[in-house]
Amino acid sequence: MKNTFGSALTLTLFGESHGPMIGVVLDGLCPGLPVDEDAIRAELDLRRPSGSISTARREEDKFILASGVFEDRTTGTPLAILIPNADTKSGDYVYGPARPGHADLTAHIKYEGYEDYRGGGHFSGRLTAPLAAAGAILRAALGAKGIRVGTHIARLGGIPDRPFGDFDKDITALTVSPFPVLDPDAGDAMRAAIEAAREDGDSVGGVLETAVTGLPAGLGEPWFDTVEGELAHALFSIPAVKGVEFGGGFSLADMRGSEANDPVSYDADGSLVFGSNHNGGINGGITNGAPVLFRTAVKPTPTIAKPQDTVNFLTGENTVIEGRGRHDPAIVHRARVAVDAMALLVTADLLTVRYGCGWFRQEDGR
Amino acid sequence: MKNTFGSALTLTLFGESHGPMIGVVLDGLCPGLPVDEDAIRAELDLRRPSGSISTARREEDKFILASGVFEDRTTGTPLAILIPNADTKSGDYVYGPARPGHADLTAHIKYEGYEDYRGGGHFSGRLTAPLAAAGAILRAALGAKGIRVGTHIARLGGIPDRPFGDFDKDITALTVSPFPVLDPDAGDAMRAAIEAAREDGDSVGGVLETAVTGLPAGLGEPWFDTVEGELAHALFSIPAVKGVEFGGGFSLADMRGSEANDPVSYDADGSLVFGSNHNGGINGGITNGAPVLFRTAVKPTPTIAKPQDTVNFLTGENTVIEGRGRHDPAIVHRARVAVDAMALLVTADLLTVRYGCGWFRQEDGR
Amino acid sequence: MKNTFGSALTLTLFGESHGPMIGVVLDGLCPGLPVDEDAIRAELDLRRPSGSISTARREEDKFILASGVFEDRTTGTPLAILIPNADTKSGDYVYGPARPGHADLTAHIKYEGYEDYRGGGHFSGRLTAPLAAAGAILRAALGAKGIRVGTHIARLGGIPDRPFGDFDKDITALTVSPFPVLDPDAGDAMRAAIEAAREDGDSVGGVLETAVTGLPAGLGEPWFDTVEGELAHALFSIPAVKGVEFGGGFSLADMRGSEANDPVSYDADGSLVFGSNHNGGINGGITNGAPVLFRTAVKPTPTIAKPQDTVNFLTGENTVIEGRGRHDPAIVHRARVAVDAMALLVTADLLTVRYGCGWFRQEDGR
Amino acid sequence: MKNTFGSALTLTLFGESHGPMIGVVLDGLCPGLPVDEDAIRAELDLRRPSGSISTARREEDKFILASGVFEDRTTGTPLAILIPNADTKSGDYVYGPARPGHADLTAHIKYEGYEDYRGGGHFSGRLTAPLAAAGAILRAALGAKGIRVGTHIARLGGIPDRPFGDFDKDITALTVSPFPVLDPDAGDAMRAAIEAAREDGDSVGGVLETAVTGLPAGLGEPWFDTVEGELAHALFSIPAVKGVEFGGGFSLADMRGSEANDPVSYDADGSLVFGSNHNGGINGGITNGAPVLFRTAVKPTPTIAKPQDTVNFLTGENTVIEGRGRHDPAIVHRARVAVDAMALLVTADLLTVRYGCGWFRQEDGR
Repeated sequence: MKNTFGSALTLTLFGESHGPMIGVVLDGLCPGLPVDEDAIRAELDLRRPSGSISTARREEDKFILASGVFEDRTTGTPLAILIPNADTKSGDYVYGPARPGHADLTAHIKYEGYEDYRGGGHFSGRLTAPLAAAGAILRAALGAKGIRVGTHIARLGGIPDRPFGDFDKDITALTVSPFPVLDPDAGDAMRAAIEAAREDGDSVGGVLETAVTGLPAGLGEPWFDTVEGELAHALFSIPAVKGVEFGGGFSLADMRGSEANDPVSYDADGSLVFGSNHNGGINGGITNGAPVLFRTAVKPTPTIAKPQDTVNFLTGENTVIEGRGRHDPAIVHRARVAVDAMALLVTADLLTVRYGCGWFRQEDGR
Repeated sequence: MKNTFGSALTLTLFGESHGPMIGVVLDGLCPGLPVDEDAIRAELDLRRPSGSISTARREEDKFILASGVFEDRTTGTPLAILIPNADTKSGDYVYGPARPGHADLTAHIKYEGYEDYRGGGHFSGRLTAPLAAAGAILRAALGAKGIRVGTHIARLGGIPDRPFGDFDKDITALTVSPFPVLDPDAGDAMRAAIEAAREDGDSVGGVLETAVTGLPAGLGEPWFDTVEGELAHALFSIPAVKGVEFGGGFSLADMRGSEANDPVSYDADGSLVFGSNHNGGINGGITNGAPVLFRTAVKPTPTIAKPQDTVNFLTGENTVIEGRGRHDPAIVHRARVAVDAMALLVTADLLTVRYGCGWFRQEDGR
Repeated sequence: MKNTFGSALTLTLFGESHGPMIGVVLDGLCPGLPVDEDAIRAELDLRRPSGSISTARREEDKFILASGVFEDRTTGTPLAILIPNADTKSGDYVYGPARPGHADLTAHIKYEGYEDYRGGGHFSGRLTAPLAAAGAILRAALGAKGIRVGTHIARLGGIPDRPFGDFDKDITALTVSPFPVLDPDAGDAMRAAIEAAREDGDSVGGVLETAVTGLPAGLGEPWFDTVEGELAHALFSIPAVKGVEFGGGFSLADMRGSEANDPVSYDADGSLVFGSNHNGGINGGITNGAPVLFRTAVKPTPTIAKPQDTVNFLTGENTVIEGRGRHDPAIVHRARVAVDAMALLVTADLLTVRYGCGWFRQEDGR
Repeated sequence: MKNTFGSALTLTLFGESHGPMIGVVLDGLCPGLPVDEDAIRAELDLRRPSGSISTARREEDKFILASGVFEDRTTGTPLAILIPNADTKSGDYVYGPARPGHADLTAHIKYEGYEDYRGGGHFSGRLTAPLAAAGAILRAALGAKGIRVGTHIARLGGIPDRPFGDFDKDITALTVSPFPVLDPDAGDAMRAAIEAAREDGDSVGGVLETAVTGLPAGLGEPWFDTVEGELAHALFSIPAVKGVEFGGGFSLADMRGSEANDPVSYDADGSLVFGSNHNGGINGGITNGAPVLFRTAVKPTPTIAKPQDTVNFLTGENTVIEGRGRHDPAIVHRARVAVDAMALLVTADLLTVRYGCGWFRQEDGR
């Protein structure tokens, strides 16, 4: 299905970094959900580059709610959000020399020389802007039902953040922070690591950790649409993501069953309480009611200033490339917005599959 | 789409551990592909439990090629493989107490008490048998085109295997080995670790590493059907998988761009040569021609003999569960067959999406 | 998606007329629905050939509920029904000469000579048997919610049946009648027309008319999954169907708007009452609460005894073909079972899309 | 999948009649296909209302190629076409009284009062404008491979057009004619019938007949994605379509097999020649190489000036509605553009499924 994702709630993404417009179509939303333009703007702002740790490209990200919204409510028909491209300096981009680690070469092979190469074209991180806008609408719809998504930088440049503590408090803080960490000191050290990389003409990666809280138990399928599978499918299309793990993830491989298994009991109210969350809130592909926890590995930004050996696919010659165009020494903190958007999308889709879109209906409707 | 996976080549999986039959429908195959019953039998044998490191359940795995095969060739219509369940001791299974780390509880919530709980029902690792059978057919079809898939246990009980060396030689060895390791000494140590766990009434997990070689560059999509996303989606439905990473994976998060980027050059023949493979053969979601490399984290088997705190969801009471039924102290080596099958399925699907099913046509056809 | 149909509730069909087994996988059903083997048997019996107006092939249609059923209830996992092929006389079938109007030639081209040609292979009307079995389960599930499907032969050999009158009474009669007509005299005349065709070594077609009653208003989508589009998509895969129309259908093309529009009013209870049903219960692709009415054109059975000009695609020569194998002088009355099954499938899918599978939950559940 | 259609080549449609923009995303196109803005404009012009037989709304249909096009060629990434809404007189539309035969009432029920009701909202025939634009690109891509689509008004107001004769000549004439008939006299009589209806404050319907020529044999699937099923699925989402038939269609129901079967022979060159085309170029759901022929029943435009009995769903009262807003006394000639677009889309999708997008590659590429 290429550029469309989702089963009952689908998202279609289109656009190129330097084309006229990029956009997203969200289909399958319940009618009557509030659409708050300020919330969309706030989510887009989180994604926007800022300060010396980001690219110098400054895009205003004006957006057009082209369809599916009427009198500030979703209509239930496809909701299209369009974002015109403004600050495009296409002259900065050269065609032929492939940036190592980037999609230049694979795009050239796949699209047979017809790709819009300017600024990464359809592969550009810029396409996460319409994702973020869609995410803002879903965040409000899920939030009204007690479901929340928050992501922090769990590690960057070898510097660890503290783990999630009070989920509600932590998520509240993260969703308004452009550099999302739980421990401010860790954040300072991370920013310093990014600065250091930038000064070296280099870049850094990191690990993002996400919590989805408030999910009912029973979402997902054993084969093939497990909660893990759906989330990973979406997450891996975020540029630079190279690993996804749930709960204990790769560390479970070194545990014994007696350590890895999460004990469970009923509390006084008859609610399920898990003694640990090594399974990341998912058993057999299905939510168990504990917070869904996952980590996403983000590789360092491939576009760097340092000289690198590569090929020029137009001339067919080996060459050396040096940084060109505007770029970020780290995109981990910005990728966070895309990770949130994907988690919101998958969560909303899983709920729609199980309960129909009416589950999202709100009491204050018309 | 629940129990169906794939875009142009789809696989539908059905069955319960203790029902009459389990099976798989493979749809979208090119007509004229050879179907070798011995190869299917061999693949099923690799998955079969054996020796003291596996469950005592011994299933013969007789299979019926119910449709889509005529005179030992695929017809191009849906190919159904059925496997009757034989050695079912349903009396071993008790309903109510939830095994921690297992799907008992989530199945009960999702299916509202109507699930066939015997032997894990639809969640059983037994459903990887029809997957393996389908994989055998795909392995032959891909192999005829120079594409190979092989998986080894990269780590188990803290014991590492050596990395892939000569891919062709290594894959040849792995595809016939019931305990797939590249270093025989590591294999002995891993088996000892499994034995030790078994003696403790416990279990171990591990990490599988897979190589897919011979893939043309240009497969996959930037959004959303990246090669990583498609593979991860499939892999996470294998029971006990909790993490998937490509190339350098999580270790890339601690590298700088100048380390992580894979330098590339043309060799004397004009072929692309990559200086490293930190991206696991995939850039921007699209194959670059280098081997696709990924690692899958398999948690320890949740069913263990040791007593564990849990709930009885029928009585609504807290309880202690002790091992019951037949079970494996490790499933890592058996999960390998499912990992291979998923890699074969996704690979064949990606090729069909890009080139149509005719790409698989073989010269020796009628 | 080839041999799988449906959005939230999917049906996958496999098998060949003379292979080991044919079958169907139904995925997305709510857990806890009753599965009555007698009802499945009754639906299969309606489809079975009988008397001189049908093929001499007499198949017992034993079926295996291979998965998805536990203690006579659906489990919510994929429900597979398998039907072994028994009475196969493959020797009757010759390969090469293409029966005009049949799929022999197109199957040969599409499957490049690898098709299982015996008895029509995957194109055989025999594949409607597993459809009928699946239909029986859906008929019960929908019936429990007040939704009913019934089909009569509206015209055959130029002989018209009376239109639907009292829907409930008519549908009750039709669902147990092997030759479904509302006017017994019309039925006698139709049977005579079939006999006459048989004596001439020829065949007849006809028009089936179907009513779906009890549907809630609001099902379906404006683009592209209209109720009409979904039903037509399914119906056209029934062999020999060449036309589908809703409500007034083609006759609307000759009306004016003032005639064609269905006036609507509230009755004393505030329920909507339509003054006519030219739109077949669907406006803008969406159910309006009136019965969904459609007609399906079934061409005459292509396999006839009379000599016909055709090609032998193996020898590449022109030839004359005469009837061979067992065949029906009419399949209209048997196609009815497939039409019902498709209507039941689409209806159940539309409901699942809108409300989730829980809508089907029944009070008498565990 | 709601507002997305297609398997390998997908089209996503969004927008409301009086919202900011309507648009379409076409995904799965081969890179390198020419995109001719004049051809898009010409196709849009054919759809535009003109003269007294159409609505007084005059829309300029400026379009934006937002993505997927670079230097006048497709890039292979999603191609989005946006059309801003300009001439919107929303004040003309009243909310509450339901136009009989229209989607007002079903939209209100489905979208629970949140629908954008102005001008028919998402149900508006205006959404066929982006379809037409997408169709223009596909028409060029298919035409370069010898595949052509043309539609004429086969019947309107009881007046028949002549049948297709020389397909190539006829299609050439039809594709530039705003009122597409093969017999000019029939066209004059039809226009007079439309005028007469307009003067009566009424409307007329008609039957469109479409030919798709140049298709290779072997496209389509036996279950469920027959060529008939795919086309019908798409066609029924065109507003006002209530019937679709292939080849002889409903008239086959009154033939005997010996009449209905199409004799076939090899000509001197070894090509297949069919003696008739009662099957509309399709056997067993699969193209046989003869032209694909189908007819589409278009009901009379539901919005008329004459008073009609209906309900006011806001007040819950019975009422009488009289024509309001701008409307067409006939949309048959305009619906033709949508029929062509759907035929082009389905055809291109079937080819992409079978051969991959590379089939469309053109020699004059870069």
